[in-house]
Amino acid sequence: MNNAMPMKGEDRFIESLRAIVPAAEPVLIGIGDDAAVLRRSPSDTAATADLLVEGIDFLAGETPERIGRRAVSVNLSDLAAVGATPRWFLLSLALPETLGPDFALALSQAAAARGREFGACLAGGDLSRGPAVFVSVAMCGDLESAPLTRSGARPGDWLYVSGATGRAAAGLRIARAESEGAADVAKLEPHERAELLEAYRDPEPRVELGRNLSREGLAHAAIDVSDGLGVDAGRLSRASGLRIVVEADLLPVAPALAAFCRGRSVSARELVLGGGDDYELLFAAPPEARAALDRLSATVPLTRIGFFEEGSGAVLRTPDGDRDIGDAGYDHFGEPARP
Amino acid sequence: MNNAMPMKGEDRFIESLRAIVPAAEPVLIGIGDDAAVLRRSPSDTAATADLLVEGIDFLAGETPERIGRRAVSVNLSDLAAVGATPRWFLLSLALPETLGPDFALALSQAAAARGREFGACLAGGDLSRGPAVFVSVAMCGDLESAPLTRSGARPGDWLYVSGATGRAAAGLRIARAESEGAADVAKLEPHERAELLEAYRDPEPRVELGRNLSREGLAHAAIDVSDGLGVDAGRLSRASGLRIVVEADLLPVAPALAAFCRGRSVSARELVLGGGDDYELLFAAPPEARAALDRLSATVPLTRIGFFEEGSGAVLRTPDGDRDIGDAGYDHFGEPARP
Repeated sequence: MNNAMPMKGEDRFIESLRAIVPAAEPVLIGIGDDAAVLRRSPSDTAATADLLVEGIDFLAGETPERIGRRAVSVNLSDLAAVGATPRWFLLSLALPETLGPDFALALSQAAAARGREFGACLAGGDLSRGPAVFVSVAMCGDLESAPLTRSGARPGDWLYVSGATGRAAAGLRIARAESEGAADVAKLEPHERAELLEAYRDPEPRVELGRNLSREGLAHAAIDVSDGLGVDAGRLSRASGLRIVVEADLLPVAPALAAFCRGRSVSARELVLGGGDDYELLFAAPPEARAALDRLSATVPLTRIGFFEEGSGAVLRTPDGDRDIGDAGYDHFGEPARP
Repeated sequence: MNNAMPMKGEDRFIESLRAIVPAAEPVLIGIGDDAAVLRRSPSDTAATADLLVEGIDFLAGETPERIGRRAVSVNLSDLAAVGATPRWFLLSLALPETLGPDFALALSQAAAARGREFGACLAGGDLSRGPAVFVSVAMCGDLESAPLTRSGARPGDWLYVSGATGRAAAGLRIARAESEGAADVAKLEPHERAELLEAYRDPEPRVELGRNLSREGLAHAAIDVSDGLGVDAGRLSRASGLRIVVEADLLPVAPALAAFCRGRSVSARELVLGGGDDYELLFAAPPEARAALDRLSATVPLTRIGFFEEGSGAVLRTPDGDRDIGDAGYDHFGEPARP
């Protein structure tokens, strides 16, 4: 009889993946055994999991490279929000039968490459079939200093946001219109269009910013903006037991976003507050941190957009008065907001 | 205006879950922040991820309690295979819109309870929508001694299996027939039927056995049997670079399984070798470990079913000769075996 053992498709996939994703620190035993083995860490560990579902968290028909990269980026963003240094992650996939091992391999390779950019090694995972593409990542990082949480803000703290929110929501609308073959109603310059699409498709996790805030003790509380600035401000407010006042005229609006909203029924402010998928950091910092934050602003734009006070809720302050912003945005157990 | 912040459905779910799943060691910050925080471990970490998809890895219409419990059990089994002590896990869920927060809560609570039985605390996770129920668990454990791997077997080692494989595959057939309203063709005693269903629905991860094998240095290599004893023997063989000979007359056949196969077109041996979903441990041990393994057998039945020799492949030895068994079983990138 033939002693050459025939391999199953799943095993062939794992062998291919192992060949392109070598184990690196802190992974002692990586892809292919029953469990990965990670070298002990000298610090506490931060752990997060994020799940992306086709048609819900990304558009159907997206390339495997973009899906894999994005799945890792959103987990990196969670680690950024607590100030951790990414170290390793697990990747679980379910794919429809129409998609073969090449799709899984391209997705995994892109995920591994994105992790590597931030120091996180792909250590293992799982593979199954499913009625749609599901990508589940679990990621761990080292906490070299005290973790940032949502609950430490104090009255008098200022509220800061990194980057410019709302662009990803505009990018999603462009991508969706594109995939549906709809005409582009916005008269956008090519670079504006590219900037918005990029903000949606390839978010930049604020890992270095989170680490700096934690290491230098600059933030009392932080959250990453995934479901919309308003909703996530509401979460920060609730966890800290304080009221957040966002001052409308301080909100940063990217020129590309302003251009996108010109001639549309949606305002830039609505997208800035309720858009989602931003993966910026929203954090509470005492006024005395201002000089240090100005310095950090040289690499990542940081904007003071409001403050914390005694009370509850998150409100937007405009010349016409205050309005609640804590309930706009995306909700997995409710109606998706349609800003 | 009303300062009482309205909460989103997802946040309400998280608050409900946090109330019933308190953080316990090593979880310092648990459910509800951007990332969980775990106390540093004095040992290396074993990490695994397993995902269960409705209609693929469990039958449609299964109760949330059973799904949650099972998702944790299969991850515990992976940690058992490397000899780790389970410590914490993350749980990510996608649910169709027809299923509300009660389903997610019941599933999560059952998962947390199952983890707790084995010392693993639910630390966090994620929630999304999807076209089917999708459950992804990532679990970590401490390695208090050298991890068991698939690759350490030596020529002359004996091959052992815990418990009795094949019962889960019979249980799946009973459950499927039940869900389709088909008549039960097997004349089974109620306790036999219950035993088979239980083996499928509620596998018992061999955590204590794996820890003992690792701690006492009794096994040179190990794997948990998830895709069928034959396939997993093939994996052990390939990783160790040796040939495995399984002796047909040594294979344990549970009386309930024998009863199930009576009058059916499937043989007990086919289910024992190719059934899948067993979550027993299959391991290589030197002959001198026999006395210690006999002692461990008092709590978990251990059966010597074959041996390792120079060569490659996994074969079943019968009076009619040897036949390859390394390619039977379930394959996520090929045709499911229909034993």
